Amino acid sequence: MSLPTTMHAVEISEPGGPEVLKPCEAQVPTPGPGEVLIQVEVAGVNRPDCLQRAGAYPPPPGASPLPGLEVAGTIAALGEGARRWQIGDAVCALTPGGGYAAYCTTHADHCLPIPSGYDMVKAAALPETMFTVYYNLFTRARLTAGEVALVHGGSSGIGTTAIQLGKAFGARMLTTAGSADKCAFCESLGAELAINYRETEDWKAAIKEHTEGAGVDVVLDMVGGPYIRPNIDVLKRDGRYAFIAFLKGPKAEVDFSKIMLKRLTVSGSTLRPQTDAEKAVIAADLLRDVWPLLESGRVKPILHETFALDEAAKAHALMESSTHIGKIMLAVG
Amino acid sequence: MSLPTTMHAVEISEPGGPEVLKPCEAQVPTPGPGEVLIQVEVAGVNRPDCLQRAGAYPPPPGASPLPGLEVAGTIAALGEGARRWQIGDAVCALTPGGGYAAYCTTHADHCLPIPSGYDMVKAAALPETMFTVYYNLFTRARLTAGEVALVHGGSSGIGTTAIQLGKAFGARMLTTAGSADKCAFCESLGAELAINYRETEDWKAAIKEHTEGAGVDVVLDMVGGPYIRPNIDVLKRDGRYAFIAFLKGPKAEVDFSKIMLKRLTVSGSTLRPQTDAEKAVIAADLLRDVWPLLESGRVKPILHETFALDEAAKAHALMESSTHIGKIMLAVG
Repeated sequence: MSLPTTMHAVEISEPGGPEVLKPCEAQVPTPGPGEVLIQVEVAGVNRPDCLQRAGAYPPPPGASPLPGLEVAGTIAALGEGARRWQIGDAVCALTPGGGYAAYCTTHADHCLPIPSGYDMVKAAALPETMFTVYYNLFTRARLTAGEVALVHGGSSGIGTTAIQLGKAFGARMLTTAGSADKCAFCESLGAELAINYRETEDWKAAIKEHTEGAGVDVVLDMVGGPYIRPNIDVLKRDGRYAFIAFLKGPKAEVDFSKIMLKRLTVSGSTLRPQTDAEKAVIAADLLRDVWPLLESGRVKPILHETFALDEAAKAHALMESSTHIGKIMLAVG
Repeated sequence: MSLPTTMHAVEISEPGGPEVLKPCEAQVPTPGPGEVLIQVEVAGVNRPDCLQRAGAYPPPPGASPLPGLEVAGTIAALGEGARRWQIGDAVCALTPGGGYAAYCTTHADHCLPIPSGYDMVKAAALPETMFTVYYNLFTRARLTAGEVALVHGGSSGIGTTAIQLGKAFGARMLTTAGSADKCAFCESLGAELAINYRETEDWKAAIKEHTEGAGVDVVLDMVGGPYIRPNIDVLKRDGRYAFIAFLKGPKAEVDFSKIMLKRLTVSGSTLRPQTDAEKAVIAADLLRDVWPLLESGRVKPILHETFALDEAAKAHALMESSTHIGKIMLAVG
C-alpha cells in the first residue's frame, strides 16, 4: 500500500473561537522510532482541544500542531522498532495531537485493539476518557470497592466514564450535573445521587446529607475554583482529591490544616505531558481491567453527536455550549 | 510493688501563657485494656503541648487532660491483655497526653525499648520526633535514597531528626533555620544547605539555585502560611508536600493547576488522632529501621535543656522564644 504525501486535516488557523478551525491540506506525518502511522477513521473532540484552539494549551515539544488527542482507524505504517501491530490492524489510540487529520502518528504502545462488537465511532470515544479516568480514579486516587466517590461534571465524557467505571469496580458514585435531564442520565448510568448544581444552592450539604454526614473517599474534579473548598470539606479522613481540569479556574484560598488533620491527599494529573512509558502502563492496565467490561457491555462510551471533520468548528461550539451529554466525535475517513 | 493513689504532676490550670502550668496532685491513672502504666522519669516538651496549654488543641476523647506526649521510665503496671512488657522494664513511649506526671498510661504497643547506651533523658526525647518524622517523611511522602528533601525549621526537634534520618537513608537534605548558628548546626548534622531565613530574602531562589533549577522531591513543612506557595513552586514533578504543623498559619491562596501539572501530592498528618493500631505500626517500623541507627550513633536526639517538672512554665517559655536548638525536656522522677 503506497501512502499519499499530503492529507486532508483541520488546523488551528490562529488562536481564537471555534471559527478558527479550518480545513487544510497537510503533510502526512512519518512515524518515528516505536511509533505507528494510523489512517484515521474517527477522532474524538476533547476539552483540551478547545484550550489549544484558544491558544491556552500549546502542544508539547515534538507533537503535531494539529488538534486531536484520540482516534480510531487502521495501522498504515510502522516506525523503526514498532512492535505489536501489523499494517491493516484496527486500533483506537491516544495521540499526542494531530487526530483531526486523515493520518496521525502515535506510540505503538498507546494503541489498543478495537473492543469486539465496537464500531470506529464508539472505539474512538474511548482513549481520552478511559486513560484519564482509570489513571486518576484508580491508579492515583486508589478508589476501591465499597468506597464513595464524588465526580463533578457527571454528564461529560469524563463524568459518564467515571460513573460507570467506579460503579463497575464496586464504588458508590455521586455526581453533579447542570440540568434535570443530565442528572437523570447520570443516575441511569449508575450514579447513586446526581445533584443539579443549577438548582441546588449547596451541593456540599446535599452530599453530607446523602452520606449521613460521613462525606466521600475520593473527589474527581474538573471544575476547581469555587468547588475547591467544599470538595475539601466533603472529603473523609484519608480522602483523596484528584484534579484533572479547572473549568472554573485553578485558584482558591484554602485552610491547609483541614488537609493535615483529615490526612487528605490532594493531587492531580494531566495525560498529555506524561512519558511514553507512563502512558504505555495505563494502556496495559486498561486492556487488562477495562476492555473486558467494554466487551461485556457493562461499561460503554456515551456518544452525543458525530460531525464531519470539516465541521470541527460546530463540534467545538457545541462542546463549549455544555448542552451535550457524552462524547462529541468527528468522522474523518 | 504497691502503687500510690495520688501523684505529683503539672496541670493546665486554665488556658493561657506558660504561667498557667501549675504543679498539682492528681490521681494515678489506671491502665485500660492493652495499656501499661509507666512510672515517668523524663518527659519531652513539644509544640502541641503549648497549643494545648493555650486552649487551641483539646486532648482527644479519653486522653488525660494533663499535657505531655512522650516519656521515658519504667513499666509500673499492666492493663488487661497488655503483652510484651514486664513490670520494671525500661521504655520510652508515645503517650496520648499525661506525660507531665509521675505516672502515665499509654498503649503497650506504643512503647519502645530504651536504645542501648541511652539514658532516660535521651530516650524520652525520641518518640514524638521519631514517630512524626519517620511516618511523614518515609511512610507518607515516600522519600527515598538519592532524592532531595526540604525541611523547614531545621534546628527544631523535628528538623534535627529529619535532617539526620533523611541523610541516614541516603537523601540529600536542605533546610531553613532562623540564625547563622542554627544553620551551622544543621549543616553539622548533615544538611547539604541551610538557609538563614532571617537574612535571605528569597529562600525559594536559594533552593532553586542550589539544585540548579531542579527543585526538591519532598517538602516537610511545619511553617505553612507564607511558605505554602513557594513550597509548591520548589517541588519537582511528582513531588510530595507533607504538612505537620502551621506555625505561621494554615491559610494560603494557591494555584492548584501547579499541583495538577506537576502531579504533586499534597498531604500531611498529625500523630495524636491516629488509631492505636496505626501508631503501633509506626512503632514497629521505628524499631526495625531507626533503632539500629540510634544504637550505632549514626542518628541521635539533639538535647537543648532539661528542666525540673515543676519548671514546666520556664520550659514552655523557652520553646516559644524559639532560641533553642533541639529538644526541651522535663525531669520527673
